[in-house]
Amino acid sequence: MNDLIILKIGGSVITDKFSEKPKVNKKNLRRISKEIASVYDREKMSLILLHGAGSYGHVIVKKTGIDKGIENFEQLKAFAETQRLQNDLNSIVTKQLIEDGLPAIPCQASSFVVMDLGRVEEMSLSAIKGLLEVRMIPVLYGVPAYDKTQKCSILSGDQIAPYLAVNLNAKKIIHATNVDGVFTGDPYKNSDVKHIPEINSKNINQVKEWLTGSTATDVTGGMFNKVTELLNIGVESHIINALVPGNIVKAFNGEKIGTIIRL
Amino acid sequence: MNDLIILKIGGSVITDKFSEKPKVNKKNLRRISKEIASVYDREKMSLILLHGAGSYGHVIVKKTGIDKGIENFEQLKAFAETQRLQNDLNSIVTKQLIEDGLPAIPCQASSFVVMDLGRVEEMSLSAIKGLLEVRMIPVLYGVPAYDKTQKCSILSGDQIAPYLAVNLNAKKIIHATNVDGVFTGDPYKNSDVKHIPEINSKNINQVKEWLTGSTATDVTGGMFNKVTELLNIGVESHIINALVPGNIVKAFNGEKIGTIIRL
Repeated sequence: MNDLIILKIGGSVITDKFSEKPKVNKKNLRRISKEIASVYDREKMSLILLHGAGSYGHVIVKKTGIDKGIENFEQLKAFAETQRLQNDLNSIVTKQLIEDGLPAIPCQASSFVVMDLGRVEEMSLSAIKGLLEVRMIPVLYGVPAYDKTQKCSILSGDQIAPYLAVNLNAKKIIHATNVDGVFTGDPYKNSDVKHIPEINSKNINQVKEWLTGSTATDVTGGMFNKVTELLNIGVESHIINALVPGNIVKAFNGEKIGTIIRL
Repeated sequence: MNDLIILKIGGSVITDKFSEKPKVNKKNLRRISKEIASVYDREKMSLILLHGAGSYGHVIVKKTGIDKGIENFEQLKAFAETQRLQNDLNSIVTKQLIEDGLPAIPCQASSFVVMDLGRVEEMSLSAIKGLLEVRMIPVLYGVPAYDKTQKCSILSGDQIAPYLAVNLNAKKIIHATNVDGVFTGDPYKNSDVKHIPEINSKNINQVKEWLTGSTATDVTGGMFNKVTELLNIGVESHIINALVPGNIVKAFNGEKIGTIIRL
């Protein structure tokens, strides 16, 4: 297989994350799709895309509490509806990608994963491996999934990315977020914070202290969880600001923007 | 686990199968959803739903030939777009089911299946088992899927139904189609044909001779394939006409309508 790149596009980038109703940010989606299409080399590159839920997921999950488990029949329906909404978002995303010339095929992770207490316990990757082999671009996304202990938990794109990276031997993970990488605090709340260009074994303990979560309703835990998922996996990660046009192209080209995690 | 029923709703029933553009038959979908909700007993029943593609699938597949394998990059995009369209149809179907009170969760089979020459070779069922265990109703559907030999083939609902029935030890398969079961010929082409109430070891050879395929564009093979898939699986199947209001309820109640396959 060619070098595998895993690009996760944050829900905060392609949706209006603060909207109470599911709402796509079409302008960002179109631009990002075209950036991906411009760097995708179908001869030399294997690519998996992931996207977050943004306003398609966080509101309904917070309202119904299904991320903490299922206790009644109403929550079972909310589990189903949350999945359905994610598929709707994924359809809009893949439609744009296909229009821009990419063979971007939806892949619903909750139909092949078993979770336990919010962590992946079993995930069958045969189909994804096959799709990569024939040069498709699987597009996964954050989903509510069956959980052995609590019946349902949220499998976020932030957890899927490193899982796939490790098990499919990826070369790099790129996290396209709405901030310029990792900071000593929340850049949306405090202008006094400093940018951290690289996270490695020397500064990791300090970095963990600095991180305190993201700004909007985010049932998947914000920047702290994002970074934590990327530690000690043996795959280089790159957290970039995809609100800045051209940054995705730069990240694919290995330019030093955002924050690089080497640990 | 409770008694597992697998209900497959034909694409010819919930879409306008003859439409050149994807088009749902909303009236049929609404009625059928309500029939299912009226017989679903969440205490005693486990249920898997399947649906066909109808005008969401057969036209694009026939046009692009992806069911016979992938030979060029354009077909890779068609593979992706065909999957995306199926997810759109599935979202409309599950939306209706959820509105009618059912915890009907989308399950995309192509994200966990490996095919070979059009037949299922490997299919991870852990997630579906888990979803059934917590009382969800998985809703699968016909999809284009990774194929080891020809890169892509179509995994029809007609193939999924008996596969799940055997591997999950189902009690019964109900096929909700647009005809009153199996006939000695095509009832849409020939008014002279006779109805076959039961298919068993005594009449199977004669039945095979009679069957010659369905009336519309159907890349999954029509009635002949439907019946062939249901033979020798050790699970009773019931082929009924879901265009007739009340027939789904009758089939769940075990009434003798349509054609029963005991073989």
